[in-house]
Amino acid sequence: MCELMGMACAMPTDARFYFAGLAARGGATDCHIDGWGIAFLDRKSCRVFIDDQPSSMSSLAQHIAREPIRSRNTIAHVRKATVGKACIENCHPFVRQLWGRNWAFAHQGSVHGFTKDLDELFRPVGTTDSEFAFCSLLQDLHKAFGNREPACEEIFECVAQSIGSITEYGSFNFLLSNGELMFAHCSTHLQYSTRRWPFAQSRLVDIALTQDPDDSLSRNNVISVFSTRPLTDTEVWTPMSPGDLHVFEAGRIAASTHIPVPAHIAERARRQRTPRPHFT
Amino acid sequence: MCELMGMACAMPTDARFYFAGLAARGGATDCHIDGWGIAFLDRKSCRVFIDDQPSSMSSLAQHIAREPIRSRNTIAHVRKATVGKACIENCHPFVRQLWGRNWAFAHQGSVHGFTKDLDELFRPVGTTDSEFAFCSLLQDLHKAFGNREPACEEIFECVAQSIGSITEYGSFNFLLSNGELMFAHCSTHLQYSTRRWPFAQSRLVDIALTQDPDDSLSRNNVISVFSTRPLTDTEVWTPMSPGDLHVFEAGRIAASTHIPVPAHIAERARRQRTPRPHFT
Repeated sequence: MCELMGMACAMPTDARFYFAGLAARGGATDCHIDGWGIAFLDRKSCRVFIDDQPSSMSSLAQHIAREPIRSRNTIAHVRKATVGKACIENCHPFVRQLWGRNWAFAHQGSVHGFTKDLDELFRPVGTTDSEFAFCSLLQDLHKAFGNREPACEEIFECVAQSIGSITEYGSFNFLLSNGELMFAHCSTHLQYSTRRWPFAQSRLVDIALTQDPDDSLSRNNVISVFSTRPLTDTEVWTPMSPGDLHVFEAGRIAASTHIPVPAHIAERARRQRTPRPHFT
Repeated sequence: MCELMGMACAMPTDARFYFAGLAARGGATDCHIDGWGIAFLDRKSCRVFIDDQPSSMSSLAQHIAREPIRSRNTIAHVRKATVGKACIENCHPFVRQLWGRNWAFAHQGSVHGFTKDLDELFRPVGTTDSEFAFCSLLQDLHKAFGNREPACEEIFECVAQSIGSITEYGSFNFLLSNGELMFAHCSTHLQYSTRRWPFAQSRLVDIALTQDPDDSLSRNNVISVFSTRPLTDTEVWTPMSPGDLHVFEAGRIAASTHIPVPAHIAERARRQRTPRPHFT
């Protein structure tokens, strides 16, 4: 499978600390070695870095770890290939444009078997079920609203409906952002932790690294961090329930709903709730 | 204005040598300090690095200079802002998807004043005339062929027609690639140099750097390098004539045509033919 990491913040925030924890899972503390990627979205601005090397050994990941890129929304992913070979075009996050915005998407799980007629503008480049599902979500949004960019609530409702047609095909845990909003959907497992002033010290579980609050963390910032499994042991992580969809705006939950998952997916979620052991 | 660099090759090729020459023009040997970017396209694979820092001082550019990324098609750009402020969303190359391929585009010049109705899928994210023109080219391609991915000759003809509606608005020198093809259009100035076996030593004009042919340059490779102004003084650079459009496939010219440019643009080209002095 894969692992997700994300951050949705009220103010542009450096994501390197949590990315360091995730990157370790790409070959050092876990087996997600088939590429990685990170997208920094801050309103209209979008920068994406992808690599087909294991994140724990990637010189690009080391570069990212050295240079702060502050953004309001960050989505990162380490990949263990299930559907689609290990190559650049199959690395998450995927990015496409709609209504003059960049939309980025990363998926953990597998919805192999989900199919649909996608038109020429939403045809995937790579061969993953994940990019296919992302293209399907965007096509649904486009078909629903056409030329008019919808409001947050309308996007939320449409995304929830789209999920309903995909969720029966497997585990569809994802993060989706358009630079303003961050959608977090759990069909088997996804957790989040919301941090506020006064920020305390954080400690990663994968590597010996702590983060002390510094001046860049303003009193007005709110930081929601997402992860497939908790990245720290110093914060309270809230496991989302299978079927939960939240949309975060400026780091806070703006709307939530629940899209029922089939019994066999719920059972998979229950079995996987027990954390898998790390490599030692 | 800005400067372009590109490479179209028969085999995946390391572009770092020429990029080093271009990157120097972003603040060291010339004044294109408002951001830079480079896109590596190799069939379906596409990696893009953009930065709003001057390329001569950018740690990301230094990272790119250290790590070889081999691709058949490379497009790079250093920006001096004319239309649209200096920010990430205005950095070239721009990338969008059509027919399950990534399309990358970078522009040198200004077509300020060109306007057109762009629909929601081709709406620009940033505020440059360049991204607007790119979106217009893609929309024209989409409208012409719809669901069916056209052949090289059809794309070529459509791109040539689209250029005809834009070229009167100013200087529209650009590189456009879909991972297989590289379109090079000159309306005022763009040069190229095609290198073949046996490859000789190259020497940059901007910085004291030479490149000796190594084992990665196979007998079967053909490398066409594009630049606004010659990057080396060891190779023959062919200035394209104002109005020329070439499409390169596997490093070689596959088709050419000429789209007449208005007299005032041709006059601008003539005046700018004399190389501007470098910073000293």
